[in-house]
Amino acid sequence: MSDQEQKAVVLLSGGLDSATVLAQAQSAGFDCYAMSFDYSQRHSIELTAAEKIAKHYQVKEHKIVTLDLSQIGGSALTDMSIDVPDHQTEGIPVTYVPARNTIFLSIALGWAEVIGANHIFVGVNAVDYSGYPDCRPEYISAFEKMANLATKTGVEGMPLHIETPLIDLSKAEIIQAGMALGVDYSQTVSCYQADGDGKACGVCDSCRLRSQGFNDAGVYDPTIYQ
Amino acid sequence: MSDQEQKAVVLLSGGLDSATVLAQAQSAGFDCYAMSFDYSQRHSIELTAAEKIAKHYQVKEHKIVTLDLSQIGGSALTDMSIDVPDHQTEGIPVTYVPARNTIFLSIALGWAEVIGANHIFVGVNAVDYSGYPDCRPEYISAFEKMANLATKTGVEGMPLHIETPLIDLSKAEIIQAGMALGVDYSQTVSCYQADGDGKACGVCDSCRLRSQGFNDAGVYDPTIYQ
Repeated sequence: MSDQEQKAVVLLSGGLDSATVLAQAQSAGFDCYAMSFDYSQRHSIELTAAEKIAKHYQVKEHKIVTLDLSQIGGSALTDMSIDVPDHQTEGIPVTYVPARNTIFLSIALGWAEVIGANHIFVGVNAVDYSGYPDCRPEYISAFEKMANLATKTGVEGMPLHIETPLIDLSKAEIIQAGMALGVDYSQTVSCYQADGDGKACGVCDSCRLRSQGFNDAGVYDPTIYQ
Repeated sequence: MSDQEQKAVVLLSGGLDSATVLAQAQSAGFDCYAMSFDYSQRHSIELTAAEKIAKHYQVKEHKIVTLDLSQIGGSALTDMSIDVPDHQTEGIPVTYVPARNTIFLSIALGWAEVIGANHIFVGVNAVDYSGYPDCRPEYISAFEKMANLATKTGVEGMPLHIETPLIDLSKAEIIQAGMALGVDYSQTVSCYQADGDGKACGVCDSCRLRSQGFNDAGVYDPTIYQ
C-alpha cells in the first residue's frame, strides 16, 4: 500500500460492530484514525467505551466530534421524551436517527480529506438494514459515488472507498470474526439505555440482537446487565 | 402543493446567494425552514446576517446548528493559521472547507426528514463550482440520489429534492434575480474576513466576486467596506 492507501478513518461508536471493524482495519494494515460522535445520545457511555477501544488499538488519533443531534430530534436515541421500546417493532424503529449515518460519514469524509485517507470504515450490517434505510448496500454505494464527486481527492483521481466489512454478516458472524481477531467484547457497549457504568438493560433491540448473537455464535457473552 | 410538498429546508449562510435562494423558495410558495451553521468560521458575523434575513422573511423556524469544523481543519475559513488570500489562485482555493456542503446538506436532510420536508434549497452556483468540487451539478445529483436511499421518506416513496435555483447563474444574474424579488443585499455578508460590524475586506475572493457581480449587473453595490 502507498502512504495514502494506508490511512483509514474508522467510525467508532464503542459498540460491538465498530470495535470489530477497527480490529479488521488494523489487522489489514491500515493506519487507523478513529472518529466518534457525542451527538447527545442517551447512551453516551458508549463514548467511554470508544475511548478504551481506541486506546487498546493504539489508533493514530481518536477524534470525538460534538454535534447535538437532539436539536433536530425525531429519534428515541436523542429525544428523551420518546421511550426506547422493550420489544421488536414493525418497520423502521423509533431508535432510527434521521440521516445519522449520512451525517457521520460526511464528517468522516471531511476528516479523511484533510488527513489524506482514502478509506472510511463503517460497521453497518445486514442485521441493521432490515430496519434502518441508511445501512443498506445500495445506500453505501450511492454515498461512495457522491463522496468521490464532493472532494478534492475524488477530483484529483484518488478514489475514496467506503469499507463495510460487516455488511453481509449476521450478529453471530460478526462476533466470530471479532473473536478470531481477539476483540475484547467486554469493553464494548451496545445497549441504547446503558447506565453510567455501561451496564445493559437487556430488553432493548440492541441488547436482544447482541445477546442472541453471542448465543448463536456459541461464544460466552461478557455483557454485564443492570 | 400538498402539505408535505409545501415545506422546504433552506440553507442560509447569511451571504448573497443563500438570501436570494430563500427569497426564491418563499416566492415559490414554500413554507421555509432556514438552517445555518456555526462552524467556527472566521466570518461568523454572517450568522448575524442570517438571523436578520430569516426574520425579515418570517421563516417558520430558523435553526442554527453548532458544529466546530475547526476540529477537522484543512481550510483557511476554519484554521486561523491559514491566511485568506487577497488574489485569485489556481485550482481548488484554500478557502474550500473539506466536505462542507456534504456535511451541511446531510444535517439539513436529517431535519427535513423530521419535519416532513421534501425539498432542500441550497445556493450553490456556477461561479463557485469552477473551484469547489461540491458545487457541481453532478455532485448535487449524486447527493440527491444518495439522500433518497438514506431516509425513511425516500424508502416510503416521497422523494426528496435538492433544489439549486442558482446553479447555472453568474453572480450578476443571481443579483438580478434577487433584485426582482426585492432582496435587500445590504443585509447580507459575503466577505470571508468581515469585521464585527459586517464590514467587508474588499480583497478576498468572495468580496471580488460580489463586487464584480454588482458591477456586471449594473446594480448599486450596498456593501460597506472596512
